[in-house]
Amino acid sequence: MPLILETIVTTVSAHGALHLVPFGLIRDGEDFWVAPFRPSPTIANLEAVPFFAAAAPADVRVIAGCVTGRRDWPTAASRTIPVPRLADAYGHMELQVVEVRDDPVRPRFRGRVVHDEAHRPFLGHNRAVNAVLEAAILSTRLHRLNAETVLAELHHHRIAVEKTAGPAEREAWNWIAAKVVAALPQAAAASLAVDGA
Amino acid sequence: MPLILETIVTTVSAHGALHLVPFGLIRDGEDFWVAPFRPSPTIANLEAVPFFAAAAPADVRVIAGCVTGRRDWPTAASRTIPVPRLADAYGHMELQVVEVRDDPVRPRFRGRVVHDEAHRPFLGHNRAVNAVLEAAILSTRLHRLNAETVLAELHHHRIAVEKTAGPAEREAWNWIAAKVVAALPQAAAASLAVDGA
Repeated sequence: MPLILETIVTTVSAHGALHLVPFGLIRDGEDFWVAPFRPSPTIANLEAVPFFAAAAPADVRVIAGCVTGRRDWPTAASRTIPVPRLADAYGHMELQVVEVRDDPVRPRFRGRVVHDEAHRPFLGHNRAVNAVLEAAILSTRLHRLNAETVLAELHHHRIAVEKTAGPAEREAWNWIAAKVVAALPQAAAASLAVDGA
Repeated sequence: MPLILETIVTTVSAHGALHLVPFGLIRDGEDFWVAPFRPSPTIANLEAVPFFAAAAPADVRVIAGCVTGRRDWPTAASRTIPVPRLADAYGHMELQVVEVRDDPVRPRFRGRVVHDEAHRPFLGHNRAVNAVLEAAILSTRLHRLNAETVLAELHHHRIAVEKTAGPAEREAWNWIAAKVVAALPQAAAASLAVDGA
C-alpha cells in the first residue's frame, strides 16, 4: 500500500465556484492521486478545470470543521494554477491532472506537482492534532461502523487531547464530539467532550 | 493543560558533544518548556550551554530510531545558537534558556524562540507517521503499562500503518515492533510487524 497524505483539497467549477474538502491523497512516485467517491463536486470540478491545490492546515479546526458543516475557510491565490489554496497552511502543493481513470464508483485523477511552497515552519507533531484527525475520519463512518467500537476508539483518542491539546485542538475535538453525540444515542456527551475549548 | 509539541531536541555539552533526543515541549505563550526527568544528559548540557534546537523530523524513522537505539542522525549548524539541529527536518526552532526551575525529579527549562525556519513544506498529515509516534511513546513505557493494553493499542495503530504508510514508515514501525516483541513475551512478532519495509 502506498503512502496516504491527508490534505485539504481545493478545486473550482467551470463557473469558478470553490470547493474545499479533506482528502487522503495516494502517493505514486512523485505524483498524487485523488480518488473521490461519486457523487462529489470534486469530480465535476476536475473534469472542468484539471488542477487542484492540496494544503496541510496549520489549524486542525479546518479538518474538524469540514466534517461538521464548517467549510467556509479563507483561501489564497495559488502561484501557478487557477485554483485557490487554503490560506492558513503549513505548506501546500499545486497539482495538474495528467491522467484520469474513469470508474462508475470512484474515478481517479493523477495529479502532478507543478509547485510546492512552505508558508510557516512545521515545528513538531502534536498528539491532539493527530487524535482530532482520527476522530474526524471516524465521524464520517459512524453509520458503517459498530457504535461501541467507535466510542471506544474516541475515548482512547480523547486521552491524547486531554494531555496535549491547546485551545484550538480542544475546540476542534468538541465539534466532532458533538457530532458523534448527535448521531449515536449510546454516546454520553459529558464523557466525550473536553474542557477548556 | 497546554499544548505539547513533539520534537527532536538537540543540546551540547560543555565540551561540545551533541545529544539528540525526542522531547514533548510544553507550550507557554510564545515560549516552550523542556522538562527532562533526571538523570538526563539534556539537563547537564542545558546547565552548561543554555540553548537548544527543536526540530520536526521529515522522516519518522528518526523518532522510531531514537527509541530503538538508533540515535546517530545527521545534524546541521543552527543559524543563531551554538547548538546543531536535526538536518532532515520540515522545520526547526532555536531556543535560548531564559528561566530554570530546579527540581530533584524533573527540572524545567523555559526556552525562548530566537529563530525558526522552514526547510521543506509540510504538505499533509500521514496517519502512519502518527501511529509510529504513538507506538514510539508506548515503547518507552512497556514496563509501566499493562502488556495486554499496550498490545491492543499497538494492534490498533498497526491498522493505520497497513493502510497509509510508505516504506520509511513501515521500516520505522517494524523497528518498534521488534523492540516490543523482545520486551513482551506475549507479543507475537508475526502479527505486529508489517510487510514491505
